[in-house]
Amino acid sequence: MKYQGDKVTDINLAYIGGGSRGWAWTLMGDLAREEALSGTVKLYDIDIPAAKNNEIIGNRLYDRDDVKGKWNYKAVESLQEALTGVDFVVISILPATLKEMYSDVHTPEKYGILQPTGDTTGPGGIVRALRAIPMYIEIAEAIKKYAPDAWVISYTNPMTVLMRTLYEVFPGIKAFGCCHEVFGTQRLIGAAITEFLGVERPKRTDILTNVLGINHFTWIDRVTYQGEDIMPIYARFVDKYYEEGFRGAHRVKFDLFKRYGLIAAAGDRHLVEFLPGAWYLKDRETVAFWKFPLIHVQSRIEDLEKRMEKSRRLVNDDEPFELKPSGEEGVRQIKALLGLGDLITNVNLPNRGQAPDLPKDVVVETNAVFTKDSVRPVLAGEMPIPIRNLVMRQVFNQETVVKAAFERDIELAFQAFVNDPLVTIDLKDARALFMEMLENTKEYLPGYDI
Amino acid sequence: MKYQGDKVTDINLAYIGGGSRGWAWTLMGDLAREEALSGTVKLYDIDIPAAKNNEIIGNRLYDRDDVKGKWNYKAVESLQEALTGVDFVVISILPATLKEMYSDVHTPEKYGILQPTGDTTGPGGIVRALRAIPMYIEIAEAIKKYAPDAWVISYTNPMTVLMRTLYEVFPGIKAFGCCHEVFGTQRLIGAAITEFLGVERPKRTDILTNVLGINHFTWIDRVTYQGEDIMPIYARFVDKYYEEGFRGAHRVKFDLFKRYGLIAAAGDRHLVEFLPGAWYLKDRETVAFWKFPLIHVQSRIEDLEKRMEKSRRLVNDDEPFELKPSGEEGVRQIKALLGLGDLITNVNLPNRGQAPDLPKDVVVETNAVFTKDSVRPVLAGEMPIPIRNLVMRQVFNQETVVKAAFERDIELAFQAFVNDPLVTIDLKDARALFMEMLENTKEYLPGYDI
Amino acid sequence: MKYQGDKVTDINLAYIGGGSRGWAWTLMGDLAREEALSGTVKLYDIDIPAAKNNEIIGNRLYDRDDVKGKWNYKAVESLQEALTGVDFVVISILPATLKEMYSDVHTPEKYGILQPTGDTTGPGGIVRALRAIPMYIEIAEAIKKYAPDAWVISYTNPMTVLMRTLYEVFPGIKAFGCCHEVFGTQRLIGAAITEFLGVERPKRTDILTNVLGINHFTWIDRVTYQGEDIMPIYARFVDKYYEEGFRGAHRVKFDLFKRYGLIAAAGDRHLVEFLPGAWYLKDRETVAFWKFPLIHVQSRIEDLEKRMEKSRRLVNDDEPFELKPSGEEGVRQIKALLGLGDLITNVNLPNRGQAPDLPKDVVVETNAVFTKDSVRPVLAGEMPIPIRNLVMRQVFNQETVVKAAFERDIELAFQAFVNDPLVTIDLKDARALFMEMLENTKEYLPGYDI
Amino acid sequence: MKYQGDKVTDINLAYIGGGSRGWAWTLMGDLAREEALSGTVKLYDIDIPAAKNNEIIGNRLYDRDDVKGKWNYKAVESLQEALTGVDFVVISILPATLKEMYSDVHTPEKYGILQPTGDTTGPGGIVRALRAIPMYIEIAEAIKKYAPDAWVISYTNPMTVLMRTLYEVFPGIKAFGCCHEVFGTQRLIGAAITEFLGVERPKRTDILTNVLGINHFTWIDRVTYQGEDIMPIYARFVDKYYEEGFRGAHRVKFDLFKRYGLIAAAGDRHLVEFLPGAWYLKDRETVAFWKFPLIHVQSRIEDLEKRMEKSRRLVNDDEPFELKPSGEEGVRQIKALLGLGDLITNVNLPNRGQAPDLPKDVVVETNAVFTKDSVRPVLAGEMPIPIRNLVMRQVFNQETVVKAAFERDIELAFQAFVNDPLVTIDLKDARALFMEMLENTKEYLPGYDI
Repeated sequence: MKYQGDKVTDINLAYIGGGSRGWAWTLMGDLAREEALSGTVKLYDIDIPAAKNNEIIGNRLYDRDDVKGKWNYKAVESLQEALTGVDFVVISILPATLKEMYSDVHTPEKYGILQPTGDTTGPGGIVRALRAIPMYIEIAEAIKKYAPDAWVISYTNPMTVLMRTLYEVFPGIKAFGCCHEVFGTQRLIGAAITEFLGVERPKRTDILTNVLGINHFTWIDRVTYQGEDIMPIYARFVDKYYEEGFRGAHRVKFDLFKRYGLIAAAGDRHLVEFLPGAWYLKDRETVAFWKFPLIHVQSRIEDLEKRMEKSRRLVNDDEPFELKPSGEEGVRQIKALLGLGDLITNVNLPNRGQAPDLPKDVVVETNAVFTKDSVRPVLAGEMPIPIRNLVMRQVFNQETVVKAAFERDIELAFQAFVNDPLVTIDLKDARALFMEMLENTKEYLPGYDI
Repeated sequence: MKYQGDKVTDINLAYIGGGSRGWAWTLMGDLAREEALSGTVKLYDIDIPAAKNNEIIGNRLYDRDDVKGKWNYKAVESLQEALTGVDFVVISILPATLKEMYSDVHTPEKYGILQPTGDTTGPGGIVRALRAIPMYIEIAEAIKKYAPDAWVISYTNPMTVLMRTLYEVFPGIKAFGCCHEVFGTQRLIGAAITEFLGVERPKRTDILTNVLGINHFTWIDRVTYQGEDIMPIYARFVDKYYEEGFRGAHRVKFDLFKRYGLIAAAGDRHLVEFLPGAWYLKDRETVAFWKFPLIHVQSRIEDLEKRMEKSRRLVNDDEPFELKPSGEEGVRQIKALLGLGDLITNVNLPNRGQAPDLPKDVVVETNAVFTKDSVRPVLAGEMPIPIRNLVMRQVFNQETVVKAAFERDIELAFQAFVNDPLVTIDLKDARALFMEMLENTKEYLPGYDI
Repeated sequence: MKYQGDKVTDINLAYIGGGSRGWAWTLMGDLAREEALSGTVKLYDIDIPAAKNNEIIGNRLYDRDDVKGKWNYKAVESLQEALTGVDFVVISILPATLKEMYSDVHTPEKYGILQPTGDTTGPGGIVRALRAIPMYIEIAEAIKKYAPDAWVISYTNPMTVLMRTLYEVFPGIKAFGCCHEVFGTQRLIGAAITEFLGVERPKRTDILTNVLGINHFTWIDRVTYQGEDIMPIYARFVDKYYEEGFRGAHRVKFDLFKRYGLIAAAGDRHLVEFLPGAWYLKDRETVAFWKFPLIHVQSRIEDLEKRMEKSRRLVNDDEPFELKPSGEEGVRQIKALLGLGDLITNVNLPNRGQAPDLPKDVVVETNAVFTKDSVRPVLAGEMPIPIRNLVMRQVFNQETVVKAAFERDIELAFQAFVNDPLVTIDLKDARALFMEMLENTKEYLPGYDI
Repeated sequence: MKYQGDKVTDINLAYIGGGSRGWAWTLMGDLAREEALSGTVKLYDIDIPAAKNNEIIGNRLYDRDDVKGKWNYKAVESLQEALTGVDFVVISILPATLKEMYSDVHTPEKYGILQPTGDTTGPGGIVRALRAIPMYIEIAEAIKKYAPDAWVISYTNPMTVLMRTLYEVFPGIKAFGCCHEVFGTQRLIGAAITEFLGVERPKRTDILTNVLGINHFTWIDRVTYQGEDIMPIYARFVDKYYEEGFRGAHRVKFDLFKRYGLIAAAGDRHLVEFLPGAWYLKDRETVAFWKFPLIHVQSRIEDLEKRMEKSRRLVNDDEPFELKPSGEEGVRQIKALLGLGDLITNVNLPNRGQAPDLPKDVVVETNAVFTKDSVRPVLAGEMPIPIRNLVMRQVFNQETVVKAAFERDIELAFQAFVNDPLVTIDLKDARALFMEMLENTKEYLPGYDI
């Protein structure tokens, strides 16, 4: 790295999962739009050809006039090569393939268990964690060995257990986990501000929120805009749109606000997966009533084909790479860590005291102050006990899953599985479902005794 | 009180709920059989005639030759009169009547929610708590005023929240909560010892157990008999009787042992109420499969009539009061507190560190050392995280209920209600059920805004 | 209060201790220089004429052309009058008079105990606390009654125990404690930056520090300037000036840095009072060696006369009130709390988790984020155990002093006194000294049994 | 091991430090007097001839008619041989020789620092710890490897830091630390009982005490005898003997009782070493005033010669081995762990919650319940804050010393040294003293950079 005035050049960044046809392009775009940074991105993926395609796509940007941030992209074939000498590591992987994800989401449907995402908690999230944690163990060990001083940004779901894995393997890691779900809620609050204060849509980053809880089950207990307490405005907004939803959505969020008085800060499809199954996921009729979407992995599979086709066009220069704001904060965070502007934003970090009502060391999502080479959490305070109870149940289940994955202990994992709020079926059915799900994904469960 | 050699005379004891036709007689019998103690029992009950009947019944024992402990019984008409000058207070009340209990247990059945006891947790336990906590607030205030130095033994359900109430109102109270559920489990372990070690049925008090958790959801992680680790024997016992149950019972306890490796130390009918409803209480078929009984309050009502008839016969001396061992420990505990023999047994106390994995100050059940004027908990250690998770969910729900009852806050109580593991119904139904249950018992919910 | 664009008018502020001839003028000056704010300051002081003089002095500013912030000053004669209706409360009092302070500082000299300030810890600080805590109890009760929603800024020493008092009496108070000692250390770091980086003296607020510990015994474990880690530069600075001191000062700070690796962030004269007496305060020769000043209260008394004379001149308009930057942050903090610009700075607050290695609820000094109507601590992290040990000794002594003052318990206070690091004398002498100090200031110790 | 009725035979016990001419003989005597136990003791010592002598001495007991417990003694030459296959391990070593101890105790006298024992805390205790911890690291590693399931009883001083070392190296170790200082205090309380209750001297084990704090700085906040609270009697005892001491001793203990209201439960010569040096160790005159003895290591050296002479006579059968009660509890504890009788007594164990006001995992001394293969602490409760402050200062200093010894970090050790309450000298002198002490004992400080 070299500092030149208010620019930093020669940055080295490793992208684990660099063959991605989604996040990788988002990062390329954000880097291209940022003139203060330049350097080299090493793309590592177990799908080597995909990484090589992204190398071509990324490098094509270099000479474009509208590109302010100049980066070289280079596909590499080992974690060692990717990590050696880097300043930053981005991890964004798909644990296994959409085929396994299909089982995660849809196998439980046989037993009446609906999952809008299946990638965080619930039966799908737990099985996904059992696959992903061993992958993250390997990555963490490599970072410890080859890039112990690098800053590590993790985007992969299930976020909490994977962040926990990084710190468990390498306690000295400088890692944090990023997620845009809170941003979406901030935008929703922005809509409320516009509607009731009669101002133009505020910038998301001008809406100041205090964030508590865990990823995808995050809560806001305080929000201000230009110094004004926005909670009363949000309450009016909820009242107005409670029945119909705002633009047909957010009904669960509104219901939780009415019941608990705090703003649940993630998409409804995530929130419902953390709550007792009978509340919002009892059956398809209930889902329709609350107006949130269920994922269909088949459409993801179809979408993947489209993205692969798009990849081919980008590689072949048949289609221009479009530069547009992503709304993600990764590049802003990198800049702050380089000393190019402080930042307070929400991230996932081990609890060192910032969430005083949750156990030490588990991964929590709160605000943090980003300054040069430093990420320091802001004290988030305590949640009301009824919400804390809902969160804590997940925290201990997550701890159980992490331990089960480290020890490859299927029975221990089942203890978390059967205590998941979505697993509203009896013990025999739960056992059958769990074993079927493991069987379906066992190719990616090496070391487990299935 | 006077110490005379190894006897103590002139003890003063207040019995709150002294009109009882069950526990009161048990205590009378245990006191009558204990030669080291004598004195006066003041019987207080809102049902004054019932207390007066027990005065007659109790005093009839005094001159019997087979009675070793000589006690005077006196019905009194106010808490002040009952408590002034006493050394011990026993509290064992029925919060409201069997009519309200009928609603607690059977109203949820309309929504498919089965409750084997309905008096501890679940919909019934929560509503019962909302009635009982204000009563205990009144009792605690009276103890603070009239008997601040007395030892207080509480037997009333729901045990945990009522003990919490006593300490919340009067932090200096010298109170502990007693329950015989662990004793039953110790006897079951005794049966295992007899069966596999070929010895005679051991005395319950020779079976040494380490006790963790909360009342009615208590766990044993270590058991020895004459220095031998009994866990492996219990494991064989579970294997042998897993399918059929031991004498047709304890199947849930055995299933929990197989799944978690610890001995759940309460009757199955209590245990299942703390666990996700689908596990053992899905429907009557499931209940039949696991072979534990459901309470029918109608039979309790019929039983009460029999006990009232028995009371009449005892009062009129048409039937002799039968002296037999009760298996309860109250009198042993009183002796220990008087310095007449140390004792280690399980009791319910605020957590001052004995349960290091549960929040401070919540009421937990662990072993304690009883010596003269002292009850000191033994460090219980930590539970495995999956069990801790099940327990913690109840702990926070109990905290919510206590706060709701102190503040007469129905909405807060509903937050606990809807997060109860037995409330597996949707939000709308849960709301309807809760309101119906409150309506049914509102006579005993003064101050709440129903 | 009224918001008008980026200004706020009609602010009401109460100044407790408003007869001061020092801090009050500082605040007047800072308010006068700030154009965004205007309103009324109510001056309350037990010395009513002094408050009235300041009313005149303050109001004289109103019409001056160079004054941007227009404020009305009004002397009031009761706490009720001062506090009713205010948005902010500033507390800056002298507990008793310089006569009592003379005893605090100089009586211990008879026993060889030297105190450079005598107002924070040590024999002087403890006796001062015994006087001041009852005064703060009264103020806290008045705030609870008359201004429960106001923001309260406390400047009085001993800071920690007085802040603790405010929260003990009124847990819902919105109070924080401010002190400029850390600022001085930041300026010293600025000198190091200038010297070794060859840049102009940086603005203090551009030097970012992480602050840990307690007031006047605060530590910095991380400092950056424009993104650069300044610790190595400070180390070179220390090496260079270790023997001579920087401009003849800071030798203790440098010695602590060499020994512990952290920057002690208060003036040497404060730091030495928290450390074992033999280290830096053994005798006057040692003091001379380490080159820090000892206070002479006689000179303060003489200085007071000058300040009273100056007050007379200001009242009579014989001397113009000089407007110059004070270096204090009070007005910036008020602006931030009004929503006029966020701020991260160090303040004294009860520990809710921001200092995870210190007990909950004791008052600690860390950074906090100031936003509209909100002060939220930043997680400070843990101190190295040897420093934590030095700090903890003070924390528990402070807790003892607070309890002693609330209960007017002289014996309990003596337990803190005799365990103070400066009290290196034997028990008999310590007792004699303590009683003499109490006797000297007993006029201001009502309720104590001396 | 074999159980035969209420006896256990074929026990294997390793004695580390088995060449001792003191504790080894005590254990031999206690084992010989206990008929329930028999087996083999393996004696390991770096002084192999000394171990061989004890082998002869021990085996000579076997055939004596008055010996009830039959044990074979066998000197072994490696830790591996000593530990393999044993049920119990006793560790009682002298870290280095009396020559090093001479320096520990007497070198600080040059600077006016008096130490009555010099083996626990203070300059002597710290330097001794720096030597002993590496030895215990080696022993703990051997236990982990060769005897992971054995119960380990440690007697070596400094007790706390060495117990901490065992658990730090091998967290699964089943070790506890024993010390008879509390027993002595219980006997003193027995004298008070005899004097004021007019009863015969009670058995020490009938005096029930609650024990808090750390080894050699232990406190009793509750004591009963036959159910009676003995605190008021102890208060009268203190009043009576405050000036003269009881049998010319215990004046410090009495003074601490008057000042803090708790019974300090160790010999005065230990207690004073934990307290600010000026209190009781200011000079020899002060020591004389408080009437406690100072150790003279020269007399220990002379005593050793006598004990070596005695060893020779015992080996040659020129003197009979005398069997008499030792007052130690090791054999009772071994019996309890074998299931031959439960026991509640005070031991040193890592804090798992039994001392809720001290940090987790540091070694504390409290009561514990001994049952078959189990040692479970009793909740000790909290100390008054002023006492907690004195204890905590030692706890953190001990933590610092342990870390320093593990890392062989002399500078870190100096941070503890200079914050020791006995080190009342200035920094320069403290540095000189510390370096001289290290130099004197450097033969036993391998790996340190002195």
